[in-house]
Amino acid sequence: MARESKGVLYVVATPIGNLEDMTLRAIKILKLVQLVAAEDTRRTGILLRHFDIATPILSVHEHNEHARVERIVGRLAKGESVALVTDAGTPGISDPGAALVAAIRSAGFTVEPIPGASAVAAAISASGITSHGFTFLGFPPIRGKDRKQWFADATRAAADRLVVFFEAPHKLQKTLAELDNYVKRPIIIARELTKIHEEFATGTPDELGKRFESPHGEFTIMIPPEGPNDKVVEAASDQDVLALFGQITELGGSETKREVAREVGERLGMTAKQVYEIVERNKLVE
Amino acid sequence: MARESKGVLYVVATPIGNLEDMTLRAIKILKLVQLVAAEDTRRTGILLRHFDIATPILSVHEHNEHARVERIVGRLAKGESVALVTDAGTPGISDPGAALVAAIRSAGFTVEPIPGASAVAAAISASGITSHGFTFLGFPPIRGKDRKQWFADATRAAADRLVVFFEAPHKLQKTLAELDNYVKRPIIIARELTKIHEEFATGTPDELGKRFESPHGEFTIMIPPEGPNDKVVEAASDQDVLALFGQITELGGSETKREVAREVGERLGMTAKQVYEIVERNKLVE
Repeated sequence: MARESKGVLYVVATPIGNLEDMTLRAIKILKLVQLVAAEDTRRTGILLRHFDIATPILSVHEHNEHARVERIVGRLAKGESVALVTDAGTPGISDPGAALVAAIRSAGFTVEPIPGASAVAAAISASGITSHGFTFLGFPPIRGKDRKQWFADATRAAADRLVVFFEAPHKLQKTLAELDNYVKRPIIIARELTKIHEEFATGTPDELGKRFESPHGEFTIMIPPEGPNDKVVEAASDQDVLALFGQITELGGSETKREVAREVGERLGMTAKQVYEIVERNKLVE
Repeated sequence: MARESKGVLYVVATPIGNLEDMTLRAIKILKLVQLVAAEDTRRTGILLRHFDIATPILSVHEHNEHARVERIVGRLAKGESVALVTDAGTPGISDPGAALVAAIRSAGFTVEPIPGASAVAAAISASGITSHGFTFLGFPPIRGKDRKQWFADATRAAADRLVVFFEAPHKLQKTLAELDNYVKRPIIIARELTKIHEEFATGTPDELGKRFESPHGEFTIMIPPEGPNDKVVEAASDQDVLALFGQITELGGSETKREVAREVGERLGMTAKQVYEIVERNKLVE
C-alpha cells in the first residue's frame, strides 16, 4: 500500500492590523491545511472568516503547548498538514509557537515559513534609520531588578546599532521616563502600525513622554545607534522650516529668497530646494 | 483653488523568492501610486508584470540616491504618491532605501510601511529557536580587520540572544570555517527561503561546512543563544531515532518496545510517544 507523504507544519505570518496585509500564499495555505493552530482562536477566526477560510482552528498557547505537540505530530504523521499562526504578525521567538516549532522539527517533520507582516520589519523600514543591523528586545520586563538590567543592556546595544522593542500603552509613560535616564538623543516611536491612526513620532524619551500623555494602541520603539542618525531623527517639520525662514527674512538682510533657503537648509540638514518647496507648498494654503 | 493633499511615500515589502508572497495591500498600493522607486528595475519589473501593474519604475540605488530624493520630493509635493521597494523583502537598514526614507521624512512627508515578506522574520519563525529577542547583523564584512571584529562581536551578542546574519554562497565556506573558531555549538542555516529548494539545516559550523560543500542560493544563518536551545537545535532525525532504537533493542534486554521508546526519548530529548511514532512510521516503508 502506498504510504501517504508526511505532513508539513507551515508557520504563517498574519496581518498586524490591516487585514489586507495578508499574502496570497498565506490565504492558499490556510485553506489547504487540515488544521490551523492559533494563539488566539477568536482573533484568528475573524481573519479566516474575512477570507472565507473554513479550516478548523485549534487553540495553542503557553499553557497547553506541550500537550498540543503530540496532537499536531499525530496529524502530521497521518499526512495532514497544519498551519501555525499567532495573534498578529510573524510567529517568532517571543511567542509560545517557538517551542512547538522546535518540537515538530525534533520529531522529524518539515517546517516551512510563509512570510508576511512583521511589526519589527515594518517599523524599521519606514523609520529611515541607518544602522549596521539591529537588536530586537521584545517587551521590557516588569520586575524592578530585571528591568534595570534590561535598560542598561538596551542602552549598551544601542551604542552599536539600532535597538527595537515593544511597549504596551499603559506602561509607555513609565518606560519612556526610565529610558530618559539612559538615552538623551532623539528616538522614533511607531504607534498603531498599519492601522488608521498609525503615526511615527520623533523626539527624546522625555519629549515623547509629553507627547503621548494618554497613549492608545501598540507602540514600537526604536533607539537609533549613536552618531550617524542624529540628523535623521531630528528631522525638521514644515513648521521648523517656516519658522526659521520667517525669522531670517524678518531680520531684513539683503538676502534673496534662494539665499535664505540655502541658509535654512544648512541649519536643518536639508537642500535649499527642499526648503524652498516647503515654503512654496505652505503658501498655497494661506 | 483647492490645494491637492500631500503625497505619501509607501515603503512596500515584496517577495523574497516566491511571487505569491505578496500582500493584497502591496498589490493595491503599487497600482495606486504614480511612481515605483526600485533598487533593481529589472527584478521589480518582473514582479509588477506578474501582477499586471503598469506603474512607471524609477531606479534608485546607492549611487544616485541623493539626486533621486529631490525628484521624489517634487512628485510628493505635487500630491502624487510614490512606493519604495527593494530587490526583495522589506526595505530596511541594510538597503540604500534608508537614507531616502530619512530624507523624505525630513522634508515633512508621511512615510507609511506596507509590511510583507522579510527573510529575517521568516527564518526565525521556522527555526524553533527560543530567545529573548535577537540581533540581526546583515552580511559579514569582507576586509580582514573588520571581519575579525565582526565575528567577535557576533559571538558576544550570541551569548545573550539569537544572532541572525546573511551570507552569499561563494563566501559561505570561508564564513563557516571562521565561525567555527568562535562557536562550537549547533547553529541553524536556512537556505533558499520560500523557494523550491528551501531547506533548514542544523549542525556545528564545522558540520555545516561539510554539508554545504558547493553551496547554491541565499543563506540565512542563525546562532542560538548559549544554553536553552542546545536540545532544540540538536534535533534528532528519524535516522538518529531508528539507529538508537535498533541499538538498544539489539542489546537484547528484557525491555518492552514502550520502555525502549522511553529510553530513546530521554536520550534524544523527545517523548516516548514521538519515538514510537517515528518507529511505526518508518516500518510502513520497509
